[in-house]
Amino acid sequence: MVFLSPDESMMGHMDYGKAALDRHKQLKGKISISARDHLDSKEKLSIYYTPGVGTVSDFVAKHPELTRDYTWTNNLVAVISDGSAVLGLGNIGPEGALPVMEGKAMIFKEFAGIDAVPIVLNVHDTESIVATVAAMAPSFGGINLEDIAAPICFDVEEQLKDKLTIPVMHDDQHGTAIVTLAATINAMKITGRMLSDCRVVIAGAGAAGVAIAKLLYEYAKPEIIAVDSQGIISANRDNLNESKQRLLEFTNHDKVDGSLADAVRGADIFIGVSQGGLLTAAMVKTMAKDPIIFAMANPVPEIMPDLAVAAGAKIVATGRSDFGNQINNALAFPGVFRGALDNRVTDITELHKLAAAEAIARLVERSPDPDHIIPDVFDPRLVPAVAAVIR
Amino acid sequence: MVFLSPDESMMGHMDYGKAALDRHKQLKGKISISARDHLDSKEKLSIYYTPGVGTVSDFVAKHPELTRDYTWTNNLVAVISDGSAVLGLGNIGPEGALPVMEGKAMIFKEFAGIDAVPIVLNVHDTESIVATVAAMAPSFGGINLEDIAAPICFDVEEQLKDKLTIPVMHDDQHGTAIVTLAATINAMKITGRMLSDCRVVIAGAGAAGVAIAKLLYEYAKPEIIAVDSQGIISANRDNLNESKQRLLEFTNHDKVDGSLADAVRGADIFIGVSQGGLLTAAMVKTMAKDPIIFAMANPVPEIMPDLAVAAGAKIVATGRSDFGNQINNALAFPGVFRGALDNRVTDITELHKLAAAEAIARLVERSPDPDHIIPDVFDPRLVPAVAAVIR
Repeated sequence: MVFLSPDESMMGHMDYGKAALDRHKQLKGKISISARDHLDSKEKLSIYYTPGVGTVSDFVAKHPELTRDYTWTNNLVAVISDGSAVLGLGNIGPEGALPVMEGKAMIFKEFAGIDAVPIVLNVHDTESIVATVAAMAPSFGGINLEDIAAPICFDVEEQLKDKLTIPVMHDDQHGTAIVTLAATINAMKITGRMLSDCRVVIAGAGAAGVAIAKLLYEYAKPEIIAVDSQGIISANRDNLNESKQRLLEFTNHDKVDGSLADAVRGADIFIGVSQGGLLTAAMVKTMAKDPIIFAMANPVPEIMPDLAVAAGAKIVATGRSDFGNQINNALAFPGVFRGALDNRVTDITELHKLAAAEAIARLVERSPDPDHIIPDVFDPRLVPAVAAVIR
Repeated sequence: MVFLSPDESMMGHMDYGKAALDRHKQLKGKISISARDHLDSKEKLSIYYTPGVGTVSDFVAKHPELTRDYTWTNNLVAVISDGSAVLGLGNIGPEGALPVMEGKAMIFKEFAGIDAVPIVLNVHDTESIVATVAAMAPSFGGINLEDIAAPICFDVEEQLKDKLTIPVMHDDQHGTAIVTLAATINAMKITGRMLSDCRVVIAGAGAAGVAIAKLLYEYAKPEIIAVDSQGIISANRDNLNESKQRLLEFTNHDKVDGSLADAVRGADIFIGVSQGGLLTAAMVKTMAKDPIIFAMANPVPEIMPDLAVAAGAKIVATGRSDFGNQINNALAFPGVFRGALDNRVTDITELHKLAAAEAIARLVERSPDPDHIIPDVFDPRLVPAVAAVIR
């Protein structure tokens, strides 16, 4: 494996930043609306707008279940964020979130042909977010929640899934979990392991960490230890919020306490969704033979790939596009929503997520190698393969 | 003037309905999202999305006033309705409203190059509508409220104008009022009247009626009598809601009571935003010489144009595209928002509306004739002329 050194990689990141600022200012908007026919005659105006549209509105009002046959909702997803947990930037608010949501809408269109509208909110409590999204839900065919901070994101998603009859998915949780499970499935093949026999350490107990732990447990019931900034999450701690308490249902059954260093000793798999630089080479050396390291913190991973390899890691993945093995949500969400829209799925279930992970994993050649545990995000087979299992 | 008979015109309307249903089902959506660049390389993905976009988000979060320079909001309007007063169909709900809002988005794009997103709400009280729209306002560069029933629409617009720093306009009120004033200005020229000397009867005291009365009064202080389904609106009535009470500030200063027939006797101008068939030929005959009739109810006007002409009307206009002199909101709203977005106008004021009406009226040749009191909606000078005065 050839990886950039930390300095080079930070330089690369900063260059993208400069290029991104310039390009965004030049374009002034990465997406736009297109009319699907030209309004170039009175007749068309009378068909697409008044008086003709009145007949369509009357019909749809009487048959709301057919709305998608007469409007763009059949191909439409809202990408909704309150800007409270944007990338590695944290709580930067709705304006700051908008460029990310527009980028996501661009990916939806380019990768899956889905129309996506960025909606950023300046309300931040569960009740207000749920009320706002539920109020505008008839406008859309699906809801992609994005960059909403834990623990609020859990309740927001749960309540919206209950309330709405269109698919709702918080991508920071489930997109990340699906792709992480896909990478894990192939990492098992390469290292000749069974996930059910593995010890997995998950650093970070936010939206992504909780969802990854849950999906891995549902897939093969491995032994999982979750770690937050205070150390190992165990029933012995009295400072756990509700979502961390729920984590205990499928992690740390032996009630182990201690630090991240304690957790990783002897572990087979490290999954980081926490902070740059958290995992040291010394810690990697204490892991089981041929350890698997998914250092997904952005922009700076928990350990730089070259350090991890030098310390004995067999497989390294990050969240970055400039390294190999990028654990990238864009491998999952376009196909998940493509399938949900096409197959009129009203609820994205745990079984859908497990099937999506397997579909992604299967796209890697029969014998994945340590540098290629997940498909390339530009693989044209990806969206159809994932969409096919969301039904 | 050549007008269709009532039967023929209803047939025409029904044909548009059938054609509209077929066409809408075939298209399954009149608008779509386009990516403004192709995501065909890792480098572009790194610039438009992570990691590059992080720098843009960080910058915008620190300079929220520059959001429009880096996102699509500089060209973006939300078309928002709760579906409580859709065309002539009434309270048909958000799904039924969607085809109209999509049509409006199509007009925004085709006529003014504006990106517009239809948002339909399943909340219907002032507080919930305001809360929902305010929560998502950072997503947009302007808000076009549409088809929200009176009297709620008045408070919704007023509160949103107060709360938000982007332009908000309820088009059923102000778009209609602007175009009606434009038509009135030219009707004055043709009939050699001064609006300030005229008696105007407005039938219908909903969103459009109230706004028309207000704008006409601001323009020239004519004598205005408003009429609702209970008769003339006067201070003697004890069944007036708040918006109808406010109407009395600029109508019926003489506290006249009576029916629509009483109101129109001797009047110069009849403006109908009420119900089909309300104005009889006999009533027209009691009006002042060369009366002006704007029968704007949809789809069936208050009086069919041929009947009005036969009864002595000098000028007739309707809301329909299949007759001449169409008083069509599409003459105003695309240019109003084009100007508001381009000139970073944060509030659309009464002065803007008066100037927009004058700009529209000016586009008709120096001597407008009774069949051409307002410009054609396809007139390419229209949007630039209106936009130029919204600054």
